[in-house]
Amino acid sequence: MSGSSFGKAFHITTFGESHGPAVGVVIQGCPPGLPIDETVLQNALDKRKPGQGIASTRRKEPDIPVILSGTFKGRTTGTPLTILINNTDAKSFAYTDIAALFRPGHGDFTYQKKYRIRDFRGGGRASARETAARVAAGAVAQLVLAPYGIQIHSYTLAIGGIRVENFDPGAAAENELQCPDRAAAQAMEKRINTIKAGKDSLGGMVEITARNVPAGIGDPVFDKLDADIAKAMMGIGAVKAVEIGAGTGAAELTGFENNDQMDSSGFLSNHAGGILAGISTGEPIVVRVHVKPIPSIGREQKTLHQDGQETTISTKGRHDICAIPRINKVCESMLALVITDHLLRQKMVK
Amino acid sequence: MSGSSFGKAFHITTFGESHGPAVGVVIQGCPPGLPIDETVLQNALDKRKPGQGIASTRRKEPDIPVILSGTFKGRTTGTPLTILINNTDAKSFAYTDIAALFRPGHGDFTYQKKYRIRDFRGGGRASARETAARVAAGAVAQLVLAPYGIQIHSYTLAIGGIRVENFDPGAAAENELQCPDRAAAQAMEKRINTIKAGKDSLGGMVEITARNVPAGIGDPVFDKLDADIAKAMMGIGAVKAVEIGAGTGAAELTGFENNDQMDSSGFLSNHAGGILAGISTGEPIVVRVHVKPIPSIGREQKTLHQDGQETTISTKGRHDICAIPRINKVCESMLALVITDHLLRQKMVK
Amino acid sequence: MSGSSFGKAFHITTFGESHGPAVGVVIQGCPPGLPIDETVLQNALDKRKPGQGIASTRRKEPDIPVILSGTFKGRTTGTPLTILINNTDAKSFAYTDIAALFRPGHGDFTYQKKYRIRDFRGGGRASARETAARVAAGAVAQLVLAPYGIQIHSYTLAIGGIRVENFDPGAAAENELQCPDRAAAQAMEKRINTIKAGKDSLGGMVEITARNVPAGIGDPVFDKLDADIAKAMMGIGAVKAVEIGAGTGAAELTGFENNDQMDSSGFLSNHAGGILAGISTGEPIVVRVHVKPIPSIGREQKTLHQDGQETTISTKGRHDICAIPRINKVCESMLALVITDHLLRQKMVK
Amino acid sequence: MSGSSFGKAFHITTFGESHGPAVGVVIQGCPPGLPIDETVLQNALDKRKPGQGIASTRRKEPDIPVILSGTFKGRTTGTPLTILINNTDAKSFAYTDIAALFRPGHGDFTYQKKYRIRDFRGGGRASARETAARVAAGAVAQLVLAPYGIQIHSYTLAIGGIRVENFDPGAAAENELQCPDRAAAQAMEKRINTIKAGKDSLGGMVEITARNVPAGIGDPVFDKLDADIAKAMMGIGAVKAVEIGAGTGAAELTGFENNDQMDSSGFLSNHAGGILAGISTGEPIVVRVHVKPIPSIGREQKTLHQDGQETTISTKGRHDICAIPRINKVCESMLALVITDHLLRQKMVK
Repeated sequence: MSGSSFGKAFHITTFGESHGPAVGVVIQGCPPGLPIDETVLQNALDKRKPGQGIASTRRKEPDIPVILSGTFKGRTTGTPLTILINNTDAKSFAYTDIAALFRPGHGDFTYQKKYRIRDFRGGGRASARETAARVAAGAVAQLVLAPYGIQIHSYTLAIGGIRVENFDPGAAAENELQCPDRAAAQAMEKRINTIKAGKDSLGGMVEITARNVPAGIGDPVFDKLDADIAKAMMGIGAVKAVEIGAGTGAAELTGFENNDQMDSSGFLSNHAGGILAGISTGEPIVVRVHVKPIPSIGREQKTLHQDGQETTISTKGRHDICAIPRINKVCESMLALVITDHLLRQKMVK
Repeated sequence: MSGSSFGKAFHITTFGESHGPAVGVVIQGCPPGLPIDETVLQNALDKRKPGQGIASTRRKEPDIPVILSGTFKGRTTGTPLTILINNTDAKSFAYTDIAALFRPGHGDFTYQKKYRIRDFRGGGRASARETAARVAAGAVAQLVLAPYGIQIHSYTLAIGGIRVENFDPGAAAENELQCPDRAAAQAMEKRINTIKAGKDSLGGMVEITARNVPAGIGDPVFDKLDADIAKAMMGIGAVKAVEIGAGTGAAELTGFENNDQMDSSGFLSNHAGGILAGISTGEPIVVRVHVKPIPSIGREQKTLHQDGQETTISTKGRHDICAIPRINKVCESMLALVITDHLLRQKMVK
Repeated sequence: MSGSSFGKAFHITTFGESHGPAVGVVIQGCPPGLPIDETVLQNALDKRKPGQGIASTRRKEPDIPVILSGTFKGRTTGTPLTILINNTDAKSFAYTDIAALFRPGHGDFTYQKKYRIRDFRGGGRASARETAARVAAGAVAQLVLAPYGIQIHSYTLAIGGIRVENFDPGAAAENELQCPDRAAAQAMEKRINTIKAGKDSLGGMVEITARNVPAGIGDPVFDKLDADIAKAMMGIGAVKAVEIGAGTGAAELTGFENNDQMDSSGFLSNHAGGILAGISTGEPIVVRVHVKPIPSIGREQKTLHQDGQETTISTKGRHDICAIPRINKVCESMLALVITDHLLRQKMVK
Repeated sequence: MSGSSFGKAFHITTFGESHGPAVGVVIQGCPPGLPIDETVLQNALDKRKPGQGIASTRRKEPDIPVILSGTFKGRTTGTPLTILINNTDAKSFAYTDIAALFRPGHGDFTYQKKYRIRDFRGGGRASARETAARVAAGAVAQLVLAPYGIQIHSYTLAIGGIRVENFDPGAAAENELQCPDRAAAQAMEKRINTIKAGKDSLGGMVEITARNVPAGIGDPVFDKLDADIAKAMMGIGAVKAVEIGAGTGAAELTGFENNDQMDSSGFLSNHAGGILAGISTGEPIVVRVHVKPIPSIGREQKTLHQDGQETTISTKGRHDICAIPRINKVCESMLALVITDHLLRQKMVK
């Protein structure tokens, strides 16, 4: 019950602190016989590593995955698949001056309240570094999804209030921000540079889609596919809102406008975002997440010492300005994990 | 794995179809010794029953709860607490003409894809009637929360695009729509009447808050308090988006604006919505949900017969125009369930 | 976490106290499309009801099952299947004189320690009456197993120290004690009558077998098929020991004697009891349980009042002399539940 | 659902194959603030390592534990605690000649049936080597139990049919077989030497006790304390029978003989083995397990090649003659895990 497990049929458990020896994941329920090696994991991890463009720090952090169990001669065996990622920077910790302060927007205060002890180095378990393990697990999930033709993509829809206006999926691959609108991408970059100069940070919005998910995936009532997606996304550190399909916009439509009518060609629209009554329709699954700005900033802020004294804090050193686009890969991974989990569950129904 | 269970420490399982003999819930993990009787359940159920104001049907549906197990001499015993609500209208089913059609916006198509068999009467398990069991369970959860002083409230923030502008909590009790803005409530009522005349339906937005939740509740990583809230809310049939605290707005703030700074008086703002790194801060927990319009409408829509032929459908009989305000009590119940669950989990940590 | 759920893929939750309104079970994960009605449940329940021969009381207890949810037009729908069995004798409770005493061999003392409150009427949740719900669930499990040709049988191997010596399966159906040895059955009956006259009770041994279970069922390490069987059996109130295959005898064999060698005809013996490394071999699964004597006896025993005073107790009224043969059907049901659960799990592996 | 997790409140997941890079365990739910370091783990692991006396091989296998996560400054933090034990002998694998044979008494056949692929090196996941991870987890559990004064011990009750007759707990520490009867220990040693000469192997019986477990621990119905103990023990590879308290003997007693009467001094006997209705009484918890002989033997046995041809097999190299006494520490660890799990669950009840 420590909260570090996710999924029922494809069940992962992550572990590890930001500045401990390693982070990693144990995957249970992975089907046997899948070809796998460290290369596929490395490719996935490379997409969330720091130094990904203008919004990220240039810190080196290799993130080299090692498979510790669950494979034999290059294939999964059905037994727990363990992936370890050693923390090479673990020793170079320079946070000691802020060790006893509650950093605004971080979990320092709440971890202290919950456990009465906390690993203050880099956020410990609450660090975004933990998401490396999710990405490794997501890469394995993608191996399960591949034979079904299921494809998962993400796009940066907004940064710092600048939104995509002309959606061109091809454009996303051309810019570091993974933004499918060239003009918006340029405006975002300018905004990032301005904010960086002011020692502040930015949030934004990401859209994640899954195509070719077969109809009939998802459980009713509480474990609806969209409910599990909402949990998966809101469980990513910086996410503060999750939408499915028409999302917030659905609240402003009428029933006639919002309903996805059908004819013999299939659904005539996809306001449902590919999910009805918690079960997939076969249409693309469409998810949007709203990401808060990075809480670690150079600007001085009021806070408390853990002993109660008032003080101020300003973050030294290099930090990301915006969680996007590094978070995009994490969102993709979580969506892959949810879909894989429900796909395997469905095998029991049939 | 049929998806009908929720919670770990306070673990509920609901059952029952819209037009079967009954709906109900089994609650496991309820602390022993709580005073309880059917009256407290009845009061909660009365708040979600039909005929709640202008947006609802006037159909009679008594919803009388019966406690089948888990109590002795008016107190809980710690063993499974079962509550049954008989379906008194079960026999008067008049859907047979649409039994084989996939109603737009409903789960008919997806249930058929998943199970290859479905109880088509009133949506079966996918019916909103299932939420009666959630409300009964939520009432029990509230009994657990009461000694902590934890209070949960909901407000109607928007219907049909009309939003609350002047928030006055006292006003909400004065109108059937539970809207904390008298002028907005009147505009909403007009909008509902117009839409009703056009045989269409509306969606809207609800805010749910929990006050006096102690700091330190919630699990890290995947089972974050906000992740579980997101799942709980998105698992309610009509919900298409969930926000915590500043929510979608957080994506447009800078880090300096969004961070909740602290001084000796506590947090200076609550953009976090009472949750940092998935664990409660002690500030009010603030949740907003976006509700799609009721899919059953009188207007004619294109759809398919389950054998594949094209046809049209228009819903006969009385249906709600808007899920709000009946859904408000369901949202409150889900929030109560999540908080109770995490509150009991925390007892193991300490 | 109240302990009343069993299974992962075929997941049941039982509820209800001995003298409350009803006992029942909610089954999640039952495959859709199975033909089912109350008759098949009734037949199963009739096999555990009181008045089953010389070892049981003659009390009337009809045990009529009602299906509350999860079926449509005589078939399962894949949604939670709920079965309710009303307690018709619930009001005629005559235990009040012993309500505050800790009955030796019963859970009165431990429930009081655990919960500080207990439903003392007939043992409440700890009553053998709870097993009616298990038998109903087991009957549903048998419906899942039937198409695989899986057959589950039980035999009375010993009562009061008298053991079966000449095993003749056909003989079991001829006597009320379900004993596959005519001479032993007669000796057991005599022993029972002697013990009954002395106001005492007896224990014994039951063997349960499952034939035609396909090879490859069961999970490794902790959720081994035999581990789950051991849990299932030891979780039946009166069971104090569980053996698989050669069982206690295996400890006295050498490796050469105990190993089941193979040739092209298959396994040459079945000391493993159909399970190797926790996974089924395809050979019959063989389980034996050792059942303690009924703790409620007419002989006077020392005990404590729950306030601490010393006293004595002797059970009035009619009680079973031996849990066998009524417990046999419960054992069969638990074995059916475990095998069904693992059979459905295996669908995810393939 | 791969079966490698155990416990609910104190939840462990083990991973790793016999000849892969490592075995290990992730522990969730460990209370924060416990002092811990590798030394306490090493001490526990040393008690199950090979070369423990006459019944074991003399192979070197250091089993050095490394803590990868979940501690800070020598104390647990409440986050997942990961322990890794590298397989130093992993590369020296010499089983290739028997890689494609189904070794009698092993899981080769059943793993192949279940997964259609298997890591044949040393049994892979089914190897007794996996129990090193259980022992490491059990050592952490013992740290949780220590402040309660809970003590867990094990004794060798029988080997190869030779049983303890004069129980003297002090004697157990004096001989390598951990046998509490000096004369029996000598006879066992002779028996082992004889069997070793004949290239065969032996089984036996172990008793494990837990003292000072508070009354009130355990869940009713399915998750009874004895049910979970039975599962824990039967899930150890070589165990074929489990008894609680009077165990198999209870079946031969009358109710009057078997019931544990009470007076103001407490229980007057402990046939229940410290558990009534699945909940602890406060008396010592007494468990006995029956262990089958080691299946790997030098004597020639008939078996099949995985392609179906008949062949023979005889195990080369050094193997243990008897799983006892190495298994004793594993049994202790499993009992510690079950009790810790239920002790933490009980915190939620109170």
